Amino acid sequence: MDTIIRVNMTDLSVKREKVPEEWIELGGRGLTSIIIAKEVPPRCHPLGPNNKLVFAPGLLSGTMAAQSGRLSAGAKSPLTGCIKESNSGGTASQQLAKLGIKALIIEGQPAPDHWYRLHVTNDGVAIEPGDDLVGQGNLAVIAAMLDKFGDKVGVLSIGPAGEMRMASAQITAKDPTQHIRSLGRGGLGAVMGAKQVKCITIEDPGSIKVPIADEEKFRAAAKVFAKTLLDHPVSGQGLPTYGTNVLINILNEAGGLPTRNFRYGQCDHHEKISGETMRDIILERKGRPKHGCHVGCIIQCSQVYHDPKENFVTAGFEYETIWGLGANCLIEDLDDIAECDRIMDDIGVDSIETAVLLGVAMEAGVIPWGDGKECQRVLRDEIGKGTPLGRILGNGAGMVGRAFGQVRVPVVKNQGIPAYDPRSVKGIGVTYATSTMGADHTAGYAVATNILKVGGYVDPLSKVGQVELSRKLQIATAAIDATGMCIFIAFPMLDIPETFFSLIDMINAQYDLQLGADDFLAMGKRILKAEHAFNQAAGFTNAQDRLPEFFTYEPIPPHQAVWDFTDEELDEFWNF
Amino acid sequence: MDTIIRVNMTDLSVKREKVPEEWIELGGRGLTSIIIAKEVPPRCHPLGPNNKLVFAPGLLSGTMAAQSGRLSAGAKSPLTGCIKESNSGGTASQQLAKLGIKALIIEGQPAPDHWYRLHVTNDGVAIEPGDDLVGQGNLAVIAAMLDKFGDKVGVLSIGPAGEMRMASAQITAKDPTQHIRSLGRGGLGAVMGAKQVKCITIEDPGSIKVPIADEEKFRAAAKVFAKTLLDHPVSGQGLPTYGTNVLINILNEAGGLPTRNFRYGQCDHHEKISGETMRDIILERKGRPKHGCHVGCIIQCSQVYHDPKENFVTAGFEYETIWGLGANCLIEDLDDIAECDRIMDDIGVDSIETAVLLGVAMEAGVIPWGDGKECQRVLRDEIGKGTPLGRILGNGAGMVGRAFGQVRVPVVKNQGIPAYDPRSVKGIGVTYATSTMGADHTAGYAVATNILKVGGYVDPLSKVGQVELSRKLQIATAAIDATGMCIFIAFPMLDIPETFFSLIDMINAQYDLQLGADDFLAMGKRILKAEHAFNQAAGFTNAQDRLPEFFTYEPIPPHQAVWDFTDEELDEFWNF
Repeated sequence: MDTIIRVNMTDLSVKREKVPEEWIELGGRGLTSIIIAKEVPPRCHPLGPNNKLVFAPGLLSGTMAAQSGRLSAGAKSPLTGCIKESNSGGTASQQLAKLGIKALIIEGQPAPDHWYRLHVTNDGVAIEPGDDLVGQGNLAVIAAMLDKFGDKVGVLSIGPAGEMRMASAQITAKDPTQHIRSLGRGGLGAVMGAKQVKCITIEDPGSIKVPIADEEKFRAAAKVFAKTLLDHPVSGQGLPTYGTNVLINILNEAGGLPTRNFRYGQCDHHEKISGETMRDIILERKGRPKHGCHVGCIIQCSQVYHDPKENFVTAGFEYETIWGLGANCLIEDLDDIAECDRIMDDIGVDSIETAVLLGVAMEAGVIPWGDGKECQRVLRDEIGKGTPLGRILGNGAGMVGRAFGQVRVPVVKNQGIPAYDPRSVKGIGVTYATSTMGADHTAGYAVATNILKVGGYVDPLSKVGQVELSRKLQIATAAIDATGMCIFIAFPMLDIPETFFSLIDMINAQYDLQLGADDFLAMGKRILKAEHAFNQAAGFTNAQDRLPEFFTYEPIPPHQAVWDFTDEELDEFWNF
Repeated sequence: MDTIIRVNMTDLSVKREKVPEEWIELGGRGLTSIIIAKEVPPRCHPLGPNNKLVFAPGLLSGTMAAQSGRLSAGAKSPLTGCIKESNSGGTASQQLAKLGIKALIIEGQPAPDHWYRLHVTNDGVAIEPGDDLVGQGNLAVIAAMLDKFGDKVGVLSIGPAGEMRMASAQITAKDPTQHIRSLGRGGLGAVMGAKQVKCITIEDPGSIKVPIADEEKFRAAAKVFAKTLLDHPVSGQGLPTYGTNVLINILNEAGGLPTRNFRYGQCDHHEKISGETMRDIILERKGRPKHGCHVGCIIQCSQVYHDPKENFVTAGFEYETIWGLGANCLIEDLDDIAECDRIMDDIGVDSIETAVLLGVAMEAGVIPWGDGKECQRVLRDEIGKGTPLGRILGNGAGMVGRAFGQVRVPVVKNQGIPAYDPRSVKGIGVTYATSTMGADHTAGYAVATNILKVGGYVDPLSKVGQVELSRKLQIATAAIDATGMCIFIAFPMLDIPETFFSLIDMINAQYDLQLGADDFLAMGKRILKAEHAFNQAAGFTNAQDRLPEFFTYEPIPPHQAVWDFTDEELDEFWNF
């Protein structure tokens, strides 16, 4: 991976550059964030010509290392106004890595009259006409690209939401089984839309391999690494058996499952939408209870969900989506939720932001509580078609709150709060408040230690130790996000020392480096600090590192917990 | 004026308090801003129970002093998230002052099921049922209150926009001739709506007078003061003859009249919408070319505009409204613009924010350029009825930009930029950027010195001297806004020393004080610094003291001027 490719959409030119020295030890989020922080004016308009959209495979992407196939994308977010990284499985990360492309940077902005498609090969990037794809959903775009380039082509695309530059728009990544994964959060699909790039296809590199300095050492470390993943109860048993949706019953039991737009911490119909129930349904309908989002995934937390007639509905049907539509919006029928998931994939909106915003819309009386069919209609006919109501909804929970004058709007830095109530799972609340990304559970998944008792135990209802926990996790996560690894390696990493050491061994073996544990964490700190500096220059201060006010005065049952951190306590986060 | 009245809408109670020592020398914006800064949590939700809505007459309101009848309202703004003061003529300021009420503070939030009306008398404030007024426009509310309480009652009310808590909602103030004035900017009508107060009526105090320590000295100073206003060419001739709309031709000539959503600095059809043309139309139709917004106004820049059949259409038909719909939205027919003004008054939206947001909606293709009839329909049937499109538009230009993914969105701190292009009138650009209020021309009207050559001359196309000019004007304006004086006294104040000295003499005579010029400016600095501190605590930094990015790269004809201040130059503003 020795090449940076810059695609300038203003003059439709492509440049290849050698990777500068300072970027060699970076990948994934490390590279997207460092590039954005260096090259994008922090006060620029996210949809204007001066924002950049950066794709970067992780440091280990394209190798045989298990879980290493995540692709990062970064830009200034149109949703938050902050720096943003979002990552996903699919085939693109491994394909770009094998083609030697360390980062693909899309810059500038063309005249408004045409759309484009980028085609990436071993020879570089071709900018092709894309007007014929305009208006199509991700399912149709992927089908068209498979037709054109064959089953192995990598596809990154946007749906109508991205074309309309909606702040909830995601970037879709095709997975090895031609299903949809999402670089979901922060509206990166709108940035791709603002560049008028409808789709990026990547020629499969076939037998090309990424160079590895010490193959033998790498292979040995990879084996240890994989074994530890399978040894840990969460990554080796819970996730493969029930998928991420194993969390519905666990969070409900803990009183941390936000229900009816964050009014309650438990949901009466949790059994109907739980991972256990979902597994039974999937097995009965001959779906797949286990599925990987990229080649080399051994956790297989994803799944393929069928309708009662055993026809495919959706894949990658995650806890956060099911929580959001099921508990937070009170939809009781998993089939209704699955159909929503399919539509969200197709129109190209982040399912977390969308689930949160639908809850706010229900609170405002715009959609009836629990009406799954109406949610499907709204997704398809309002957001998907860009009606005025769709423009409100498609721009996120904060937008819905402003449009309808709502006070109970669960967002941080305008990004919707995911599936864990911060009052009753306080560690994740610290992550929501302080993350450079806006409310983002993956930025520092304190649920692990608060609820799953991974990496020890910190009482979720007490403030004690939460800032330290979130800080430790956010630093480690930033570094993991640079490797191309799936975040679920954090579970074994927190409990099994060999996971961490074998991970570092693989990086050292590939790049002929001598990194130690401290260097790895230093990389995490460097990434977080670069992101934080960007946000500060964009106008963010500690005063935005806060949860919405209603969490401070509205206790959540069953624990009657409120959000009670002082400003000073939260501001300690950045003390590293 | 020795009383503070607190109306608590949570428990529907009213408290009278004696004015604390530290507030005695404050009034108007001075008092609203100091109270908000002291009592409102900077990070609270503007529409939640912890925001407060403060009304305060100026220090000189209720006296015989010319131009002293402005009422200030303040709150945390739902449009900007900053502190906000907005002021207007009408009868309420003088009536509250004569009733001895230095500030009326509306706190808390009732259960959502009922609306209220407040009735202010010499005995205090009664909280009355207001459900019967819900859904009515300001015209109907005023008519109902006149029916109920007689012609002399003071009325402050909100239209449907305020009820729907739209961020462009204004608070309406009835003037002495029963016409509508507006506390327009920053969405204070939404804050009143969030308190579920539809209307405030004020019993006329009749012959009650505000106490004046030295009547003779006051009278002498007031006479000098009034004479200087009439002596100055702007306040004595230009404004009384053509109203504020005298500016259309002047700004067009200067190349600073933002046209077609800030794309051009001159407008082809400027003659059709000019103050000169408007005066001819008004005279022909037996309207009133001169009209005061409050008793004691001798500038009389307002007017009453009739339709071709000589029926009343609107009053207080200002330059900024006519610029916004006429030049910025390309509507050529003054009658169409006047009808829009009437509807905006009735539904209760700020005409500046609305004109700016309609320009953005036209840029986005939602409304055809120049279509006055469609604008009327949109105002009446979309915003007025709270349709989804109306919810987008009613929440301001920034909201429209986000909804439709637009980059050319002329806002600062999310408030629409008014009628003077900052690239070709750079002094006002500094005010837009640095004002504690978001883009607000009245916060430091550098147009006076850049274009009208009042208070000297600073070349509008050069950066030299603009920061100093804006600083001087913003400090003076903050102090003037505390007196209850109309901002147009600034014209003579900048050129005629006696205006300033007689103003201070009046304050000293009324309150038995010994203030000098420095004390007056110190008050202005104190107010600005309190507002700035609130904004900083709310999370604003210098990085928000900037104009939208497109002004920096898009030159505006005819001068091909761009916005070229460095961050360092702008940040010098707060160096006082």
